[in-house]
Amino acid sequence: METQFHLSYITPQAVSEPDSGIVKAAMYGFSKPGIIPLWSGEGNVPTPATFCNAASESLAKGETFYTWQLGIPELRQSLADYHTRHYGRAFNPENFFVTGGGMQAIQTAIQMIAGEGDEIIIATPAWPNYAGPLRIQGSKPIEVPMDFRNGKWSLDFDRVFDAIGPRTKALCLNSPSNPLGWTASRADLVAIRDKCRARGIWIFGDEVYSRFYYGAAGEARAPSFLDVCDVEERLLLANTFSKNWAMTGWRVGWLQAPRELASVIERIIQYNTSGTAAFLQRGCVTALDAGEDFVAAQVAKARANRDLVAEFLRNFPQIRFEVPTGAFYMFFQIEGMRDSAGTVRRIIDEANIGFAPGSAFGRDGEGFLRMCYLRDPVVLQEAMNRFERWLKTYQQD
Amino acid sequence: METQFHLSYITPQAVSEPDSGIVKAAMYGFSKPGIIPLWSGEGNVPTPATFCNAASESLAKGETFYTWQLGIPELRQSLADYHTRHYGRAFNPENFFVTGGGMQAIQTAIQMIAGEGDEIIIATPAWPNYAGPLRIQGSKPIEVPMDFRNGKWSLDFDRVFDAIGPRTKALCLNSPSNPLGWTASRADLVAIRDKCRARGIWIFGDEVYSRFYYGAAGEARAPSFLDVCDVEERLLLANTFSKNWAMTGWRVGWLQAPRELASVIERIIQYNTSGTAAFLQRGCVTALDAGEDFVAAQVAKARANRDLVAEFLRNFPQIRFEVPTGAFYMFFQIEGMRDSAGTVRRIIDEANIGFAPGSAFGRDGEGFLRMCYLRDPVVLQEAMNRFERWLKTYQQD
Repeated sequence: METQFHLSYITPQAVSEPDSGIVKAAMYGFSKPGIIPLWSGEGNVPTPATFCNAASESLAKGETFYTWQLGIPELRQSLADYHTRHYGRAFNPENFFVTGGGMQAIQTAIQMIAGEGDEIIIATPAWPNYAGPLRIQGSKPIEVPMDFRNGKWSLDFDRVFDAIGPRTKALCLNSPSNPLGWTASRADLVAIRDKCRARGIWIFGDEVYSRFYYGAAGEARAPSFLDVCDVEERLLLANTFSKNWAMTGWRVGWLQAPRELASVIERIIQYNTSGTAAFLQRGCVTALDAGEDFVAAQVAKARANRDLVAEFLRNFPQIRFEVPTGAFYMFFQIEGMRDSAGTVRRIIDEANIGFAPGSAFGRDGEGFLRMCYLRDPVVLQEAMNRFERWLKTYQQD
Repeated sequence: METQFHLSYITPQAVSEPDSGIVKAAMYGFSKPGIIPLWSGEGNVPTPATFCNAASESLAKGETFYTWQLGIPELRQSLADYHTRHYGRAFNPENFFVTGGGMQAIQTAIQMIAGEGDEIIIATPAWPNYAGPLRIQGSKPIEVPMDFRNGKWSLDFDRVFDAIGPRTKALCLNSPSNPLGWTASRADLVAIRDKCRARGIWIFGDEVYSRFYYGAAGEARAPSFLDVCDVEERLLLANTFSKNWAMTGWRVGWLQAPRELASVIERIIQYNTSGTAAFLQRGCVTALDAGEDFVAAQVAKARANRDLVAEFLRNFPQIRFEVPTGAFYMFFQIEGMRDSAGTVRRIIDEANIGFAPGSAFGRDGEGFLRMCYLRDPVVLQEAMNRFERWLKTYQQD
């Protein structure tokens, strides 16, 4: 077979799109015996049995036919109820659209608002799966780097707003942020809202880690665009069952959007996956309605682990990081390190720990590594012991 | 809320894309008491318990984490084995890519090969879900009508080939065809293959109904591009677990493609749904490995029902149709009928039977109705009794 035989017959953007640096690291270390994998954004516990049982019971009852493209009414109602409980006002089921994971919520949103050559502004370092699907469909991610100074991340809003041009369709904000753990304040969200309103562009928010928030006042969630926006304005929020309810492998999420877009969203979902399995949605209903204790336990575990990892990393003067206020990642810089992908491979080989390279999150992530700390604390401690030994070797190089 | 307030802020193609005529008919009749719904492409039996149990057992075992983006190795192996059994030569697991339904296989293929302004040729009447996602992404479906003369459908290959232009990226063929039941002969497939090779374009085949084939010689499947092509040539085949194994609601399918495209397909799936639930794939492994008796029973039922419906429709001189050689739809023309969408609504209201309008399958489908006959024969007979009474009224109009 001639090399590049087929690649010249597919779209240039599909060919030139890079592989995910997270996936590459995972593939490199995946089969190594004894590896402690901290590269992916998921915890170490499987989905609670009660959620699984709800899905299995639905399957056994024969709920295996085509279903509502926008989600079963019961799940849309449970989503509205969940939001009503957590965001302090009434929500309407018709603003919630069930998708095949948070990723499909993102893809649905960008397919809807951005065409060829259109732009969406993204603050980086950021999860690569906002920019990737934009490039694949011929749209343009406009990356605005955040600043890391004196051990703190900050977003220069003037720089973000200056990036808005005639082709800009949306401003994308992920808060709490993967990989940074940085969380936008209510004032930040108001500033974004006002600018987006003034310029006639969409707010595109990813608030997947909203519940994993470690605010000083013990708040149960991070500040949200839902605190400062009307659900019927130009606001699109992607979300997922993956993180709060330990359902990463289920691939079910939701898009929150103005009701006026229902038929557009329905057509896009029809042409994408044609909906999400009804029996999976039954498990999601149980997660929302009866999963609050589980979520609370997950968040408490993440918070304790965050403190554990931060305390550990503070011992190393060559490591710089901000203690995250949200999500469940530690994003840390190692002084003098300039090849995060190579360093990740080296740590896999030499220390049997799997991190994700900072470069996977944009050019300005180079020099950093990302560790997911939503793990059994004993395993996390072992990973830190290994990392400590490795760091001593690394320093001697 | 101002009408059209948001619609002016989304892409023109997402706004102007029409709703599915099939979905519209279903929504119109859905809640009518006693309706016999024959609008959708699915049978009346739920997924066999053995397939469901395999999924539920995997769920209970905690197989709820992120998994291979391209499908679990066991399912890719079972797909290769299944093809080896049915297509008379050895297949490689690496040519099979698991997707979130046949629809996602289609979307993945077209995202890969067609960009803004690129064209894919489609013979019509056709299932609307090839043209729809092309339009949504800014590509162009080029529809070539088939001919219905003297009660027979035929595809004029000269007309198809004349439609190939400088922006043409693929020729799309669905055989056996939804809605027609028409099946391409081996000679047809060779002609398409040779032309696509000569013009350097992709063959994009949908052989979802391959097993639902009623050839005169009792063949176990329809002629396939796999009979005449190399798997490593410019051939993309979309398929699904939905039809053979009564798993429409599961949303699992596969794309068969050259191995060279693996990393491109992986990136597109990463940005679309980020893979398919591993526990669902366990059910699909069981379907492939232990579902052959079920498939045989489904096909036998469809064949008997096809004969039943054909015998019934032959009683009405105003109705014209070709006895389908594949799939499980009857696509029939009613003399003088010029508004299939309106007629479908009228039949729902007046006869309590749900068909799909021919216009949903392209302009040249107008004047026809589609009936899915993969139903309990008793229910199908009742539908025909109702339809016979309705036809008498209709004739008197």
